[in-house]
Amino acid sequence: MTFAQKLEQAWKDNNSLVCVGLDPDRARIPEHLSRDADVIFSFNREIIDATADLVCAYKPQFAFYAGQNALGSLRKTLTYIRDRYPNIPVILDAKRGDIGSTAMMYAREAFDHYKADAVTVNPYMGTDTLKPFLDDPEKGVIVLCRTSNPGSGDFQDLVVKDSGRKLFEVVAEKAAKDWNYNGNVALVAGATYPAELATIREIVGDMPLLVPGIGAQGGDVEAVLAHGLDSRGAGLIINSSRGILYAGRGSDFAQASREATRALRDDINRHRPTPKA
Amino acid sequence: MTFAQKLEQAWKDNNSLVCVGLDPDRARIPEHLSRDADVIFSFNREIIDATADLVCAYKPQFAFYAGQNALGSLRKTLTYIRDRYPNIPVILDAKRGDIGSTAMMYAREAFDHYKADAVTVNPYMGTDTLKPFLDDPEKGVIVLCRTSNPGSGDFQDLVVKDSGRKLFEVVAEKAAKDWNYNGNVALVAGATYPAELATIREIVGDMPLLVPGIGAQGGDVEAVLAHGLDSRGAGLIINSSRGILYAGRGSDFAQASREATRALRDDINRHRPTPKA
Repeated sequence: MTFAQKLEQAWKDNNSLVCVGLDPDRARIPEHLSRDADVIFSFNREIIDATADLVCAYKPQFAFYAGQNALGSLRKTLTYIRDRYPNIPVILDAKRGDIGSTAMMYAREAFDHYKADAVTVNPYMGTDTLKPFLDDPEKGVIVLCRTSNPGSGDFQDLVVKDSGRKLFEVVAEKAAKDWNYNGNVALVAGATYPAELATIREIVGDMPLLVPGIGAQGGDVEAVLAHGLDSRGAGLIINSSRGILYAGRGSDFAQASREATRALRDDINRHRPTPKA
Repeated sequence: MTFAQKLEQAWKDNNSLVCVGLDPDRARIPEHLSRDADVIFSFNREIIDATADLVCAYKPQFAFYAGQNALGSLRKTLTYIRDRYPNIPVILDAKRGDIGSTAMMYAREAFDHYKADAVTVNPYMGTDTLKPFLDDPEKGVIVLCRTSNPGSGDFQDLVVKDSGRKLFEVVAEKAAKDWNYNGNVALVAGATYPAELATIREIVGDMPLLVPGIGAQGGDVEAVLAHGLDSRGAGLIINSSRGILYAGRGSDFAQASREATRALRDDINRHRPTPKA
């Protein structure tokens, strides 16, 4: 199955637009796991087992593994999800972007080594740097468009002279018109900027949008749903990381993460036009 | 020593603006090394030993290690350079860029785990995403500005309405005015676009510029020197990867890489106003 097909299926099967961001911070992992041989993997596994019937995707953040010398745990986590929950797509959040011959190596990393279903990429370097990812119809390519951080407007909001469009709108237009020849493109649109999310939705039609920024970053569920849903009342991959991973701190942390995921899913579904659950 | 100090010193000591890009491709490593336990590290070590008195920096490209399951070789390579040639700065070419809390993890990766002297970063997400790197005065932060690839103009050349400046010029202005509070910023300016290189130099004064795109990508040494030198006849980190790594294919490949590095250094120095060698 392609990323797009897996995502469609998971949206339906779990009646969920929730993506759990697997960004484990060793300093915040419950103490009782600290004697495990691979603490980060053990933590992820418990989170995954507790939430797999409630999500549409998992999104491990590469930096948390790279920064904690835990890339082995990242690979084990992807293998675990693929073996145990083969219908849930995994997005490797690595924000890659480099010249063609180098981007080929990053595609190998994401799709051959980690066997991710999709990867996040940065558009700044231009279309040719995205090609090695776009050319694989099986895999999802999720391009940064309007990100969730406070300074995201520094460049993304600059108005381009000829078109009168903002830079992030130009990226969205290119995604819709030029990059989606394999039907495998999605965009990042931060929950913290609902007006911009609406603009992106208008430009790209029913293209999936990955929406970070709910919870710790301050994004509001109701605003995201009001502005981001596609024509079928879906089309969103709404990420939560810290709000789910650290919902509890004791030995029942996985159960707490399940409750947090369910609450977020239900909150989201209340704002969808035809909730099934 | 800070990155900036190391770079100044290496420019002088080796009378060289050449940076060797350590982008080893297993498929192109000479056969006689294939029985070594760590082929990629062995290859790098021979290249380094053959060129360390001729360069101003080394620049390992993260993708080549990540894509070939060789991040252990990357770390060994950085340790080797630091132990054996402590005066040569190492730039980790990873083009990082992510929200604050995640960028912190990438800074840990580059500076704590790999102990690089500098890292390349992508500006698309805005100033706050660069802060975790900029705040460390010891370390160099090399921001993508006008890259060397064919599609680099897709976004980087868009003209911004209010200022009439192109996007890459806006990045250069921010680098000079807002980001360089620790004196640790440099920019990427591709050798394949000498006119844009000249514009960047005009904007940033004597800030160091990392210049990829010589050799395999078609950049011309004379044009780079004519447009990129700073007021002191230096200020450039001119990268060559394939042209040096694969200068020879037999058991004398390291000697061939030395000759190629020396030839490039001398070619560059011929175009400098006051060559010392």
